[in-house]
Amino acid sequence: VHISTHSVGHGVGHGAGHVAGHTAAHNGAHAHGGSHSSGSGSTLLGYIGIDTIIEQMRKKTMKTGFDFNIMVVGHSGLGKSTLVNTLFKSQVSRKSAGWARDDKIPKTVDIKAVSHVLEEGGVKMKLTVVDTPGFGDQINNDNCWEPISKYINEQYEKFLKEEVNITRKKRIPDTRVHCCLYFISPTGHSLRQLDVEFMKRLSHSVNIIPVIAKADTMTIEERQDFKQRVRKELEMGGIEFYPQKEFDEDMEDKSDNDKIREAMPFAVVGSDKEYQVNGKRVLGRKTAWGIVEVENPNHCEFAQLRDFLIRSHLQDLKEVTHNIHYETYRAKRLNENGGLHPISSNDTQESNL
Amino acid sequence: VHISTHSVGHGVGHGAGHVAGHTAAHNGAHAHGGSHSSGSGSTLLGYIGIDTIIEQMRKKTMKTGFDFNIMVVGHSGLGKSTLVNTLFKSQVSRKSAGWARDDKIPKTVDIKAVSHVLEEGGVKMKLTVVDTPGFGDQINNDNCWEPISKYINEQYEKFLKEEVNITRKKRIPDTRVHCCLYFISPTGHSLRQLDVEFMKRLSHSVNIIPVIAKADTMTIEERQDFKQRVRKELEMGGIEFYPQKEFDEDMEDKSDNDKIREAMPFAVVGSDKEYQVNGKRVLGRKTAWGIVEVENPNHCEFAQLRDFLIRSHLQDLKEVTHNIHYETYRAKRLNENGGLHPISSNDTQESNL
Repeated sequence: VHISTHSVGHGVGHGAGHVAGHTAAHNGAHAHGGSHSSGSGSTLLGYIGIDTIIEQMRKKTMKTGFDFNIMVVGHSGLGKSTLVNTLFKSQVSRKSAGWARDDKIPKTVDIKAVSHVLEEGGVKMKLTVVDTPGFGDQINNDNCWEPISKYINEQYEKFLKEEVNITRKKRIPDTRVHCCLYFISPTGHSLRQLDVEFMKRLSHSVNIIPVIAKADTMTIEERQDFKQRVRKELEMGGIEFYPQKEFDEDMEDKSDNDKIREAMPFAVVGSDKEYQVNGKRVLGRKTAWGIVEVENPNHCEFAQLRDFLIRSHLQDLKEVTHNIHYETYRAKRLNENGGLHPISSNDTQESNL
Repeated sequence: VHISTHSVGHGVGHGAGHVAGHTAAHNGAHAHGGSHSSGSGSTLLGYIGIDTIIEQMRKKTMKTGFDFNIMVVGHSGLGKSTLVNTLFKSQVSRKSAGWARDDKIPKTVDIKAVSHVLEEGGVKMKLTVVDTPGFGDQINNDNCWEPISKYINEQYEKFLKEEVNITRKKRIPDTRVHCCLYFISPTGHSLRQLDVEFMKRLSHSVNIIPVIAKADTMTIEERQDFKQRVRKELEMGGIEFYPQKEFDEDMEDKSDNDKIREAMPFAVVGSDKEYQVNGKRVLGRKTAWGIVEVENPNHCEFAQLRDFLIRSHLQDLKEVTHNIHYETYRAKRLNENGGLHPISSNDTQESNL
């Protein structure tokens, strides 16, 4: 078979202005032949329907739904469960899920995953919230990131095993952690050593989004000071959090993400209680001196976090997880094996899932 | 690490009706704990933003564009190039691309691929038209499907090699044939043996869409008769064309696709010439007795083919190619290798691409 690939100039036709032709080389190979197709205009009358692909993809997504897996890390009492419930406007966290609120703090780090399907506008999201009770709560917190790192890698391993199977599922169930919310204590001082250590060790295997928890304990000035100090410490520590600069795909990405990076870490307040404020019902925390409204941008940065995490970057969190973190894990695993057989029988670790 | 997966009932909250909670078991494992989270309603006030995923995906597609590869098969003179130009309203076919119109018919089957980037509504499609000159044009057409089958499989092999690489490209270039338009001669009699043989042999490795070429040579009655006969012959021959019944995903799919299958093969006319009809400019063929308007559903079934191929099923053609035909090829290749090492150095066939 002689295969010629061919690339031709694409002139502008008569009035069919919506068809903008570009020249594209197919594999760059064998680009012979004339560079123009005769003298006649090369676009014809009428609408093709290329942009209907968007609608076709929308329909497919409406049918299949999507997975999103979020992990929360930080010591007890920072409001992790409440914040996740506030983000997803539902009782989706471990604590709302039958584990008693007065559960004893475990003696080692536990990993607890809870799944729900949420639906909005006809789109179904299977949300898994992965909690890490016991993290940072011990007298000696040496290596307490290890069970977390192990869990994250086990999900990559599971996905890899499905991916190298001869007979594959049409859609591989995705349990990979797309986002790790790391809760920083609102001390007003600085990051703790454990914070730095955790983020340093995990930032290359998962998308970490640091947040300042329980921000209503700080005045606006304290908050600004603290945020600036934390940002400086993250930079000094060489900690790459999401959205990572190196993964900005173009100038538009860079400019959007720069604004987000400069505003991070978001200082947030969560609440699953409703109050009436100026005739409107809002989620908030009522104190003797007023109501902290969690979605009021003058009160805290919850709305900014929510917009960023769910409304603008959720798909990107999934893609960075798949294209960067999972690929890094996969390449490492295959290199260990000489690249030939990612799974062989004696290689299969039975996970405890 | 003790990993608990947990599934909880999700009651209906107060007025937040757009958050419909479903119960989802996460891996089905360890579903212990209460089936309800306390007595309080489990949805909170307000909009989450789950459905913004559609807009996020749209933005990504607008940036990256997509690939679509279409192959045309049928003997010379059936208007393959003109039809593809008419479908995509551009000179995208081999014949418009510098290969002279008076090219001699090759003595064996050639494979020629031409790529263009078309843009509409801000969405870029890299379209590759794969032509197969020489098919069916020989005195002895034995095995003339072989170079075509080989080309199709080579594209799967290329994709597989990229997929098993340790270091993978972020987006694997997709040269796989998503759709094969098979042109049936408008004889008014029946399918030829070569038609049956080609479709039988290829229908399990590529999405075949049979069309009746140059339908303006038949009267409406002849066309209906011929279509019915061809449908019967396809059925008798056990030929599965796209959209394959077995891949209908739900009742909606089945009902939509049944209508399409009952109307197939579409009897089409192509043209890249414009005429004025009732004050409107249309693509058509002018004869002494009138103008055949290609997009007029009373004249031929071009518009039905176009709507089906581009505006409703293009994404599905890509998905069936990836999920079914490519997976079938991959499983076969890996089984040949004992399933362990899809590529090893002595295994690498140098393709002639």
